[in-house]
Amino acid sequence: MRQSQLFSKTIKEAPTDEKSINAQFLIRGGFVDKLFAGVYSFLPLGRRVIKKIENIIREEINAIGGQEIYMPALHPIENYKKTGREKIDILFYTDLRTGVKLVLGQSHEEVVVPLMQKFILSYKDLPKAVYQFQTKFRNELRAKSGILRGREFLMKDLYSFHASEEDLNEYYEKAKKAYNNIFARCGLGDKTYLTFASGGTFSKYSHEFQTLTGAGEDIIYICDKCRVAVNKEIIEEAKHQCLGCGNKNLKEKKAIEVGNIFKLKTKFSEAFDLSVLDKEGNKKTVIMGCYGIGLSRLMGTIVEVYNDEKGIIWPEEVAPFKAHLILLIGKDKKGQSKIAKAADSLYDELAEKGIEVLYDDREEKSAGEKFADADLIGIPYRVVISEKTIEKGSAEIKKRNEEKVELIKLKKVLEYF
Amino acid sequence: MRQSQLFSKTIKEAPTDEKSINAQFLIRGGFVDKLFAGVYSFLPLGRRVIKKIENIIREEINAIGGQEIYMPALHPIENYKKTGREKIDILFYTDLRTGVKLVLGQSHEEVVVPLMQKFILSYKDLPKAVYQFQTKFRNELRAKSGILRGREFLMKDLYSFHASEEDLNEYYEKAKKAYNNIFARCGLGDKTYLTFASGGTFSKYSHEFQTLTGAGEDIIYICDKCRVAVNKEIIEEAKHQCLGCGNKNLKEKKAIEVGNIFKLKTKFSEAFDLSVLDKEGNKKTVIMGCYGIGLSRLMGTIVEVYNDEKGIIWPEEVAPFKAHLILLIGKDKKGQSKIAKAADSLYDELAEKGIEVLYDDREEKSAGEKFADADLIGIPYRVVISEKTIEKGSAEIKKRNEEKVELIKLKKVLEYF
Repeated sequence: MRQSQLFSKTIKEAPTDEKSINAQFLIRGGFVDKLFAGVYSFLPLGRRVIKKIENIIREEINAIGGQEIYMPALHPIENYKKTGREKIDILFYTDLRTGVKLVLGQSHEEVVVPLMQKFILSYKDLPKAVYQFQTKFRNELRAKSGILRGREFLMKDLYSFHASEEDLNEYYEKAKKAYNNIFARCGLGDKTYLTFASGGTFSKYSHEFQTLTGAGEDIIYICDKCRVAVNKEIIEEAKHQCLGCGNKNLKEKKAIEVGNIFKLKTKFSEAFDLSVLDKEGNKKTVIMGCYGIGLSRLMGTIVEVYNDEKGIIWPEEVAPFKAHLILLIGKDKKGQSKIAKAADSLYDELAEKGIEVLYDDREEKSAGEKFADADLIGIPYRVVISEKTIEKGSAEIKKRNEEKVELIKLKKVLEYF
Repeated sequence: MRQSQLFSKTIKEAPTDEKSINAQFLIRGGFVDKLFAGVYSFLPLGRRVIKKIENIIREEINAIGGQEIYMPALHPIENYKKTGREKIDILFYTDLRTGVKLVLGQSHEEVVVPLMQKFILSYKDLPKAVYQFQTKFRNELRAKSGILRGREFLMKDLYSFHASEEDLNEYYEKAKKAYNNIFARCGLGDKTYLTFASGGTFSKYSHEFQTLTGAGEDIIYICDKCRVAVNKEIIEEAKHQCLGCGNKNLKEKKAIEVGNIFKLKTKFSEAFDLSVLDKEGNKKTVIMGCYGIGLSRLMGTIVEVYNDEKGIIWPEEVAPFKAHLILLIGKDKKGQSKIAKAADSLYDELAEKGIEVLYDDREEKSAGEKFADADLIGIPYRVVISEKTIEKGSAEIKKRNEEKVELIKLKKVLEYF
């Protein structure tokens, strides 16, 4: 994409009401725009990052047998009365003109269970797993931390249905692995800990995936030996020991919850009487698990982990573009047409080979402004074409996360990527 | 995908409260599920069709310079007060816990204009066009016609911004062509008419894209000569003549509005004072156009146009799968393992080549049931492997929209596609 065409622009001054690094850089870089606290628009660069994250999640969840669906955001309040959640404080309420009361989906158990009830008729229909990418609405009293805690945000929610607890346990382990793959592909593998959390009423423990960063709102206690952690809620109960290996030398860290997995067991299936007859003809309530990842929170976490004073440093698989091609024409316009022609050709060549390039062809910007924008936006490879590089028949390539600058012959750039 | 794994199932009896053909076939085929009137979940088959439609639209809108964004569904009511739309009857209202009043997005002019105002600072920033795929919420008094008129539905909305009316007019013509391409690729080219409609307060005429079908709620008057139409609202004003060529021999037809394009001119930009300085330094209000397509309505329209008494007949580019591979084992189970092996191999081979196949490997279903399901679901090519075909080293291929059955050697099936 030509940057001269891109409607979003970088912004010099960060908005004063946005304290978090993620919001500062994402707004300044033109990734998102704040409509009001906790509610953001995603601009072309931000939309591309979200799509990259979405595709990674889709691949990994498809690989564990998830079937993609899309459920509504408007939910009948009647369904929430059945689960006793009709008054939880994060609900948004609205009404049909006919007077029927509705809530906005803050999660989808109240919709997915009656839906699956229409198709799960026998133990032979189990196990099944369905998921979606869908907006969640949560009426947070205070929305802060940029896109980490939204009042409206995109979430992947997966629900699994089983004939037995053993089967749920087996799927739960698969989901753990899929989650590890997802966070690794998003560049967070090293920093993300499987964390024991309270299971509430459903099971002894649930698990959170917590990513270490100073911007985290959560406190977790990590075990270096087995790379698991315990969250603050249950550290007392765990007697300050690692629940993996018993290690007592846990380290207190700040972290962001980037995902969670729950054994719901029969809490929601009982509420709707989702049951099947087993082989012996006995009625059995279906056992459930649920597995969530907030996509915008994940995007914000990546920014919190990967940045420097100049801007964002996107991991390659989630970057909005792979390369940022920068055309530099001197103030004297010397060699202008030759330089521009070389940059245009390289842009076309890379695009043709399917390499995603943001091409900074803007005429009115100085070299300093273009470099500052490139650092702020944080695309992994910066490719500069200027009078100086063209003299050598080359482009200058620099990785966003390294200081080293390489001169690469124009004919070899494609090979480089 | 293996049909034995697919959680959705075909349903024999259509729901009694769904009168429309689209809802009957889409629910019976397992494409959608109704949560309540006007609000549907999209199941795996339906989700695939929506994604196909979405990708067609994305390609065509990108081709006319649209930049994809994603705006929120929660809108501050303050923005609607500025445009005087805070009391329109299709709004859903809700509140933040802090007491702030919100509405659910029924369209996005009230969000996109203040957004673009942050980036359109000079006439040099024009023209620009942004679009999104986002849910719309419309509080319809009565929701009927299946997925044709939803209370919650997915829409592509494109907004364009111009320095002059001439520039808007030029873009408007490009949008017309893009819309024609979209409807043609969805199989509706022959049946869809550019239709003159009331421009409201903004311009003399706007345009609807109307698809002819007996299920249509709209009445239009078509001109066979120049393939345009006039809608009922303005037929009097048009003196019962074609607005293209003056032809007085117009035919009255029922149709569904599958898209519309509007010259908004300055209605919304004035409300937010979206203006730029022109070359001479004079303040000019930005000129706007808007362009909508409801994806679920488009999907429903395709079903209304392409069906027979047995089910849906999907046009190839929007079909959930290209081929429906059907494994038939006789009651005597004769040659079972050989037949199944041949079908499994063919499935793997097609999948490997990127041909999308739904593989009916269900053991408990009879040939009759499998054929009935295939006709109901409506995938373009049915490929049968049975004892009879295997004897001839072949598969039997039948197009959903033809009666002819062809025997194709197993080794030639890939070539066939």
